[in-house]
Amino acid sequence: MSDLKGEILRLGQQAKKAALELGKLSAADKNRILLAMADQIEAEGAEILAANARDIGAAEAKGLSAAMVDRLLLNPKRFAAMVGGVRKVAGLPDPVGEILDDWTRPNGLRIVKKRVPIGTIGIIYESRPNVTSDAAVLCFKSGNATILRGGSEAFHSNQAIAAAMARGGRAAGMPEHAIQMVPFTDRESVRHLAEMDAYLDLIIPRGGKGLIETVVSLARMPVIKHYDGICHLFVDASADLALATEICLDAKCAKPSACNALETLLVHEAVAADFLPKVAAALTAWGVELRGDARTRDLLPEAKEATEEDWVTEYLDLILAVKVVPGLDAAIDHINTFGSRHSDGIVTGAEANANRFLAEVDSATVYVNASTRFTDGEEFGFGAEIGISTDKLHARGPMGLVELTSYKYLLYGNGQVRG
Amino acid sequence: MSDLKGEILRLGQQAKKAALELGKLSAADKNRILLAMADQIEAEGAEILAANARDIGAAEAKGLSAAMVDRLLLNPKRFAAMVGGVRKVAGLPDPVGEILDDWTRPNGLRIVKKRVPIGTIGIIYESRPNVTSDAAVLCFKSGNATILRGGSEAFHSNQAIAAAMARGGRAAGMPEHAIQMVPFTDRESVRHLAEMDAYLDLIIPRGGKGLIETVVSLARMPVIKHYDGICHLFVDASADLALATEICLDAKCAKPSACNALETLLVHEAVAADFLPKVAAALTAWGVELRGDARTRDLLPEAKEATEEDWVTEYLDLILAVKVVPGLDAAIDHINTFGSRHSDGIVTGAEANANRFLAEVDSATVYVNASTRFTDGEEFGFGAEIGISTDKLHARGPMGLVELTSYKYLLYGNGQVRG
Repeated sequence: MSDLKGEILRLGQQAKKAALELGKLSAADKNRILLAMADQIEAEGAEILAANARDIGAAEAKGLSAAMVDRLLLNPKRFAAMVGGVRKVAGLPDPVGEILDDWTRPNGLRIVKKRVPIGTIGIIYESRPNVTSDAAVLCFKSGNATILRGGSEAFHSNQAIAAAMARGGRAAGMPEHAIQMVPFTDRESVRHLAEMDAYLDLIIPRGGKGLIETVVSLARMPVIKHYDGICHLFVDASADLALATEICLDAKCAKPSACNALETLLVHEAVAADFLPKVAAALTAWGVELRGDARTRDLLPEAKEATEEDWVTEYLDLILAVKVVPGLDAAIDHINTFGSRHSDGIVTGAEANANRFLAEVDSATVYVNASTRFTDGEEFGFGAEIGISTDKLHARGPMGLVELTSYKYLLYGNGQVRG
Repeated sequence: MSDLKGEILRLGQQAKKAALELGKLSAADKNRILLAMADQIEAEGAEILAANARDIGAAEAKGLSAAMVDRLLLNPKRFAAMVGGVRKVAGLPDPVGEILDDWTRPNGLRIVKKRVPIGTIGIIYESRPNVTSDAAVLCFKSGNATILRGGSEAFHSNQAIAAAMARGGRAAGMPEHAIQMVPFTDRESVRHLAEMDAYLDLIIPRGGKGLIETVVSLARMPVIKHYDGICHLFVDASADLALATEICLDAKCAKPSACNALETLLVHEAVAADFLPKVAAALTAWGVELRGDARTRDLLPEAKEATEEDWVTEYLDLILAVKVVPGLDAAIDHINTFGSRHSDGIVTGAEANANRFLAEVDSATVYVNASTRFTDGEEFGFGAEIGISTDKLHARGPMGLVELTSYKYLLYGNGQVRG
């Protein structure tokens, strides 16, 4: 066995042991530990920012793009947000221990379904160092032991943040090894984590499609995936067109890099001649490039030609694919064929169409007369989120603390046998 | 692309399309279709039993063991139970459409969390032909499209049962391709199914550890695993020893081949000298072979010596591993170290010990003063089950219709934008 694999197995065994201890903590225990972690991160701010400066220096020396370097950067504002995030999680309700169901069978056996932590969670992420504390504290609050494996570019930042969390947490009574950081950043460490199903109950990859694909192809345990958001808006024949324009602008332009941002606009042919020139003018004023099908380009000659590729592309940029469709059925069919089951909306004045859209579009979050940008743990009122699941198993859509839990059945008998 | 891969991709595409149609069916539609399937299976009984006779003949010619041949056999009683199973599922409540949550955000956006089918489910199974209808009708009732891939030994039986279901269902309005049978039984077909994450939302392997391991190592989509049940009973110092004996006999002897049968007995040292000779006499009368640790063998010299291997073995036979432990902590630690997180129980008169056992044993179902044999969908009152999940994600313990569903969020706005 390689040293690397042995080391990762050791982390896994320690995490499993820590998980059993974490299950015994009360909400008050966990909140006290979280506040101590926040204080310690704050106290070690100078060291953490110095470690970050080392990563930034290395990234610049390696010639990483300005956008990549910016993702790595911890400036005082981001650092304060990171500390604030930890304190905020301390204030959220603890989902663990909730009684989900409770019934008694005819033979007198009482069955109680109780919410419990999942156990051990691996978080594999890329360049943003704030994921270290964001992910770890959500897993900790929901009673899970965490193994973090960050990207090589943020190595020193991640180590410094994790060390501060561990010091602050341990001093306040955190079980040993509740939050561990893998001290390696090579690809092989991902493989060893993904194959360690004896000790990891779940892996959550946080990053680009390439990382998620790698984890999915290697993992032997469940993986919750946060894939692309190829989000659609369908403007129906009965839509309030001013409202449709406002929603379209918000969904496309307010934060084009978000996974819940609009990528494809579908317009009912009955309103296309009226709506498209108006919305195009507004979008163009925001600097949006339009790529349309033939019928769109008849009405908007300035639009580029959309290819098949455009219907399946998450631009994450000021680009919008536009298609004129004959009606609701075609819109639903387009979304179920080319979409990514993330967030899709209809603007309509017809309740029957709204209901059909909600029922038949197979996506995590489906909207009537609102921007797709509300697919977000904060906007849902979850207080925080670990991501937006594009899976249909276990958790779908925004994942908060509740989605980081499992359940167990407690059976109370007085001598029942099945015979 | 090989013909095999192409054919399986085609099944996947058809299943995805069928799933969208299945989502539109009412409970009444589905129940009518299920009853028509049951009638058709019954009407084609002679053909199905003839197909089964062909499989049995081939199995005997190949020299399969008597137990293997028996697993394949559809006799009139088993055939009637299969048909009855389909009718029973028609009578169960439909979980789809349930409103799981409903709240309105301060901005007026209403969020409704609604139960929906998972979508498309692959069932990969081994020799028992009744799994064909059992699994397919549970998936159908919960609104999912199913692709079945049975074992080679039951090929003709499976094809005949699936064809009857399809004919009966289609005549009653079942969407085309709602239930499909893979017409291949070679290993490569498992690989192609497991890699087809574009079209399959979930795979459930039904069979031995080897099959599950293969699916887990290949699958790119979620897999719900039904691994071993290494079930424990801990007899505490305060246990009613007559009750403990009765529970132990039921859990070990009533059906030793069940996954919820007892495999390891842990006895508190304070009652070992009193309890062990009594329970051993009762177990031996049932033909149970005992394998004990040193302290057990001091009290039961006739017991064989237990090795480390015994603590992690699912015997599925009239064999029981026995260990004397110093107390509750050691019992919990043994179970969390060597168990399989399936079903574990305590017999005790001390409520505090019961509560600690329930809280600290990390298993799907944890019992106080009852036999572990109640870990079963029927016994839980679910009406039917597709298996017992040993996973902690999505579904844990007995899986009924509800566990074959997902959810989606419906967002009702009146022009909300995030800005």
